[in-house]
Amino acid sequence: MARIALDAMGGDFAPHATVAGALLALAELDPAHSIQLVGQTAVVEAQLRDLLNGELSALAVHRDRLSIVEAPDVIEMTDRPSAVVRGKPNSSMAVGLRLQAEGNSDAFVSAGSTGAQMATSMVLLRLHAGLKRPAIATFFPSLRNTLVVVDSGANVDCSPEELVQFARLGATYAECVLGRANPAVGLLSIGEEPEKGNAVTKEAHLLLRASGLNFIGNVEGRDLPAGGTEHHGLDVVVCDGFVGNVLLKFYEGIGPLMIETLRKAGVDSAQLEAALKHLDYSEHGGAPLLGVRGVSMIAHGKSSSRAIKNAIKAAAQAVTSGMNDLIGQRLGDTTESAA
Amino acid sequence: MARIALDAMGGDFAPHATVAGALLALAELDPAHSIQLVGQTAVVEAQLRDLLNGELSALAVHRDRLSIVEAPDVIEMTDRPSAVVRGKPNSSMAVGLRLQAEGNSDAFVSAGSTGAQMATSMVLLRLHAGLKRPAIATFFPSLRNTLVVVDSGANVDCSPEELVQFARLGATYAECVLGRANPAVGLLSIGEEPEKGNAVTKEAHLLLRASGLNFIGNVEGRDLPAGGTEHHGLDVVVCDGFVGNVLLKFYEGIGPLMIETLRKAGVDSAQLEAALKHLDYSEHGGAPLLGVRGVSMIAHGKSSSRAIKNAIKAAAQAVTSGMNDLIGQRLGDTTESAA
Repeated sequence: MARIALDAMGGDFAPHATVAGALLALAELDPAHSIQLVGQTAVVEAQLRDLLNGELSALAVHRDRLSIVEAPDVIEMTDRPSAVVRGKPNSSMAVGLRLQAEGNSDAFVSAGSTGAQMATSMVLLRLHAGLKRPAIATFFPSLRNTLVVVDSGANVDCSPEELVQFARLGATYAECVLGRANPAVGLLSIGEEPEKGNAVTKEAHLLLRASGLNFIGNVEGRDLPAGGTEHHGLDVVVCDGFVGNVLLKFYEGIGPLMIETLRKAGVDSAQLEAALKHLDYSEHGGAPLLGVRGVSMIAHGKSSSRAIKNAIKAAAQAVTSGMNDLIGQRLGDTTESAA
Repeated sequence: MARIALDAMGGDFAPHATVAGALLALAELDPAHSIQLVGQTAVVEAQLRDLLNGELSALAVHRDRLSIVEAPDVIEMTDRPSAVVRGKPNSSMAVGLRLQAEGNSDAFVSAGSTGAQMATSMVLLRLHAGLKRPAIATFFPSLRNTLVVVDSGANVDCSPEELVQFARLGATYAECVLGRANPAVGLLSIGEEPEKGNAVTKEAHLLLRASGLNFIGNVEGRDLPAGGTEHHGLDVVVCDGFVGNVLLKFYEGIGPLMIETLRKAGVDSAQLEAALKHLDYSEHGGAPLLGVRGVSMIAHGKSSSRAIKNAIKAAAQAVTSGMNDLIGQRLGDTTESAA
């Protein structure tokens, strides 16, 4: 049903983690889904052969749902993200996204440079009408449900209107990918009261009240791990990309601190690591770049094959749920059908 | 050596936690220190009697270093913070801070309303010359050293110049209370590179480089639990009070999530709670309101007697280290000697 293009060359552990992740995903996805491995054909073929003759030989049955799409250019760390699409038009990033732009693929997944993926997605997929910038949505595990935090780093210095757009994007994502009906949206601030916050959040609070969204009001930092306030459950947390990115990276860094603290206190470290897997981003798939016309899923640079698998599954879910069209409708993008 | 005024009426567990905390602090502090319990005399006396006849009878020997200072007015949750000092001039907050302003006390500690403490401290103690607002500094436990995060919630919408002032305040605090020589200061942002960040942090980065402080550059969310970057240790993290407050509350909320996650995975919960005490704010004392001429220490509203004890000890350390004078010097406050 969905054709998913995977950047086979992107990420710290590519092409092993990417090609293995593709095979693992096919084994779990509906057989109607297929994957396009985008990269240097010789490299991808060699990796695929290795895996199918070795550790993943049991998955050879899924080989026919994999295709390889040649992309000779390689993006280097030193390439300016905004220059990648023009300077390296045949990178795995550009080729993968162009497949989708031209109607030959339904989604794109990459663990490569986030900046390059953002810039290339904006150029090749374009944005829904009325949007100036896309937003990154990430999952935060909590004591109740998994939360969607948007924006997690695509935008700094946001306007109140942009925060409202993030709310619409995040709510549609929560609906389509997490199956939340009428998702509860909270605005991240420093107090529950509407008058608490900075200039932008105070104005965004008023706009969100009038937005038609299921807006539960301001939420505080502690409501993220708790998964809600005293009075409300929570599905989507809205913040600018500066705060969202600081929080996301802080959350990533907490795991090692907890493990070390508990290990010193005598808790068995194997037991610890197993338990904290639940809180690991790789268990929760990639982070979509919301607002582009299509599906562009950002995986962590350090993605394991398991993380890639989960990002592919999240991309498939985004496609089959019709997320992109729904986002267009919710944003009032009347040009959607022309996309 | 230090006379510390404690708001005996402030906090969710007052007067039990406050009066007990005072006794516990006296038992650990140098005998030259004394504590002034500020509140409704009858209430404080009754609580003190209860404790000395009961659970803390072993600490009766410290009774003579405790005095009681009458403060008949009680601050209610509904009182506007900015109106407390005029509307209730004889609250424990106002009386305690006035003692210090008039030279009859060296420090003030409260677990009452943070907003009221800020406003009352600014009016009665005043700010060092050149400052517009005080900043709150909190401790963040990390894999290496404990970090000072400033500002943790006193200021939103800060200018680059204000962030530099926070850096000076935080560095002096780290020096005086944590004993760090030439503290390493990091600017919280969303990438190590100077050009990453929002408009304010980008400008603050340039100002910090020229500040004469030991500025190590931008740090990211993950560097807080890690206690530093790949290349540098870290003592002070500078951010605006919106980001700092979101992070602080997020950190507070992580503990319960970790405990629940690990408990479900079969880790013994008593072992867990004991281990995570290390990460508990109450182990680390109060948060000073930096920038006022004097010492005003904010304790968490939910402070236990142990947390109050630690806040009192941190206040004593601030006094004996001469932090207030040093802050005046570092800010170039030439009117300091007149204070």
